Amino acid sequence: MPILVMKFGGTSVANPDRIKRAAKRVGLEVAKGYDVIVIVSAMAGKTNELVAWVNETSPLFDAREYDAVVSSGENVTAGLMALTLQEMDIPARSWQGWQVPVKTTSAHSAARIEEIPTDNIMKKFAEGMKVAVVAGFQGVSPQGRITTLGRGGSDTTAVAFAAAFNAERCDIYTDVDGVYTTDPRICEKARKLDRIAFEEMLELASLGAKVLQTRSVELAMRYKVRLRVLSSFEEPSDTAGTLVCDEEEIMESNVVAGVAYSRDEAKLTLLSVADRPGIAATIFTSLSEANVNVDMIVQNIAENERTDMTFSCPTDQVKRAEAALAEMKAEGKLNFGELVADTNVAKVSVVGIGMRSHTGVAAKMFKVLSDENINIKVITTSEIKISVLIDRKYMELAVQALHDAFELEKAS
Amino acid sequence: MPILVMKFGGTSVANPDRIKRAAKRVGLEVAKGYDVIVIVSAMAGKTNELVAWVNETSPLFDAREYDAVVSSGENVTAGLMALTLQEMDIPARSWQGWQVPVKTTSAHSAARIEEIPTDNIMKKFAEGMKVAVVAGFQGVSPQGRITTLGRGGSDTTAVAFAAAFNAERCDIYTDVDGVYTTDPRICEKARKLDRIAFEEMLELASLGAKVLQTRSVELAMRYKVRLRVLSSFEEPSDTAGTLVCDEEEIMESNVVAGVAYSRDEAKLTLLSVADRPGIAATIFTSLSEANVNVDMIVQNIAENERTDMTFSCPTDQVKRAEAALAEMKAEGKLNFGELVADTNVAKVSVVGIGMRSHTGVAAKMFKVLSDENINIKVITTSEIKISVLIDRKYMELAVQALHDAFELEKAS
Repeated sequence: MPILVMKFGGTSVANPDRIKRAAKRVGLEVAKGYDVIVIVSAMAGKTNELVAWVNETSPLFDAREYDAVVSSGENVTAGLMALTLQEMDIPARSWQGWQVPVKTTSAHSAARIEEIPTDNIMKKFAEGMKVAVVAGFQGVSPQGRITTLGRGGSDTTAVAFAAAFNAERCDIYTDVDGVYTTDPRICEKARKLDRIAFEEMLELASLGAKVLQTRSVELAMRYKVRLRVLSSFEEPSDTAGTLVCDEEEIMESNVVAGVAYSRDEAKLTLLSVADRPGIAATIFTSLSEANVNVDMIVQNIAENERTDMTFSCPTDQVKRAEAALAEMKAEGKLNFGELVADTNVAKVSVVGIGMRSHTGVAAKMFKVLSDENINIKVITTSEIKISVLIDRKYMELAVQALHDAFELEKAS
Repeated sequence: MPILVMKFGGTSVANPDRIKRAAKRVGLEVAKGYDVIVIVSAMAGKTNELVAWVNETSPLFDAREYDAVVSSGENVTAGLMALTLQEMDIPARSWQGWQVPVKTTSAHSAARIEEIPTDNIMKKFAEGMKVAVVAGFQGVSPQGRITTLGRGGSDTTAVAFAAAFNAERCDIYTDVDGVYTTDPRICEKARKLDRIAFEEMLELASLGAKVLQTRSVELAMRYKVRLRVLSSFEEPSDTAGTLVCDEEEIMESNVVAGVAYSRDEAKLTLLSVADRPGIAATIFTSLSEANVNVDMIVQNIAENERTDMTFSCPTDQVKRAEAALAEMKAEGKLNFGELVADTNVAKVSVVGIGMRSHTGVAAKMFKVLSDENINIKVITTSEIKISVLIDRKYMELAVQALHDAFELEKAS
């Protein structure tokens, strides 16, 4: 039997009625002849409740205990989903992470899946079971303790199962009906994409389009897992949602696939840094050790052996970054004048694999922003994306103007 | 280090504040030099929520999935308790049933503990861990699936750990401050007992005194585990609560230790049953197969080769009993006239190991009830208890009158 992986997020399993609705979707695929592996999240709100208890109990918690507590939400949904399927006369059973076992590293709360043995579940499929319901987001460490994969980790669980079981496709059911050219909430012309390439999805995911967890897309790209993102609240259809796939499966596409944005960016500038070899390494090693995720970096041209160094990071990491740099300065390891933080910025990016073969996208982007009198503070580029940091108040205007300019409302 | 087992019920761990209060109790015992095994229930209300979801999903549920779902409440408390202890600088970690592992039979939802290997936890104690927090109520079957021990099973978990680890004592923290001569809510003269013998506690537990699960008392008696029942809401003291222990530890005691009652009893009478050898076996085998817990049984003297057979069972099992007997009749396996169910009855019992060596307790009990004009419908006795079935409306009166007559308000 061909195998299909179906993942249901928290809003899709928020209560027994929603679980029933999700189970009906599973039933349709079983009727088509698939053996199905269902990956479930915790019921919406449950993980937040558990996290709040942990934080109330122990602000600097032992991550091993955090994982033991927060993983329980998925176990509840897995059992309820198996029961719901059984009620529909579909042979099903639930698996918790340690039962499969989903073997992970021991990096608690941010563990990586290392191996998913398929024998237990395949044996049950061979015996006539039609659906294996697996608690997402969790695994077991080499020490036999429960691990979790980080928030949104159920997407990663789903893709990892699809890869391990060589599934025909991995369907991610969520509360949006697919991947859009940009966020429909801030641009009404946003258009749902039928297909998007892994690389594009990866850039969009990491740039703030919250449809899929970045790691799950990385994993899908590496193992060529065809991912479909679709809503569990729409009528079932074979063309629903967006297929995230290898670019070879996409015949023609726009040069720019989408416009992404991220509100939670901050710009930090170190003024008057001594411009000597290794200074960037010193700065960014210390930020990395302080768990600051530095995104964009710009170094100005040096004057009088002094330079300014600008970088961006998520706004909630600004305090950590400031503390780490101040400590470096106090210890005499880093010499700079002042540290200026600007937390009123946003990042806007255009993404598309067509940019590899088409020139002029950057020029057009800068012209569009300039025509709207939007000042660009920092620029970074990759092979398939261009990102700019701008004042946050212009973010929506920038997204709309770029969407119009690249005519993203039209299919290619 | 001597080992102490401490068990906290649902109300004692109902929220992070209560867990903190419970953890302080644990800290006091650690300070005395104990290595402590803490057994926790789910936060009050959580198991009911999970059970309700299961029932809503699948009225005739697969018990294996039921167990996977409902066991999650204890896992949450175990992690939170370990985190709370760590916050108090007490080295602690949590164990879920499968991690110990608590090996049980595969009788899901009513599993029995078969073995608790001590090596994992003892190794951690040897390494300096002071408290092992274990999720109660759960274990793992030979098939590697999660099992539960039935409602109230955390008491049994606690006693089983105390036996396996040869603990000095097993303290059961609950929302009452000990075992009383009767229920203080219906008899204001009820007195807390300092000590009670296992056998007496067993009769009281099975007769409806809901302080301890019956199985946990049986287990404690078999392995001579000294059990202390006490409140987590009272100030700590060495004499708090009630010690359930071997009768040899009790110097002098009243002939009658306590008066118990059970409201949820029903009386069923089969009229005009053919009085032939094996008829009782036929009836009670079929009831047992229908999972009806028959308690008291009375057979009238036969007339014309016909007799009446009366028995009692919990009220919520009456429908099941009626169905089983009707089926037997329809299949021609049992011949009787009518089945009369009386669900307006209650059971009242006096219990005391002193009854072994003192006569006249039964006579006195019947006289007291007669003086109050309470009609006795069924009587059963054991070596250390006498139970009567009476109209439910007289239950409180009977309990109060018996408590007075046996002077239970006075310590021996």
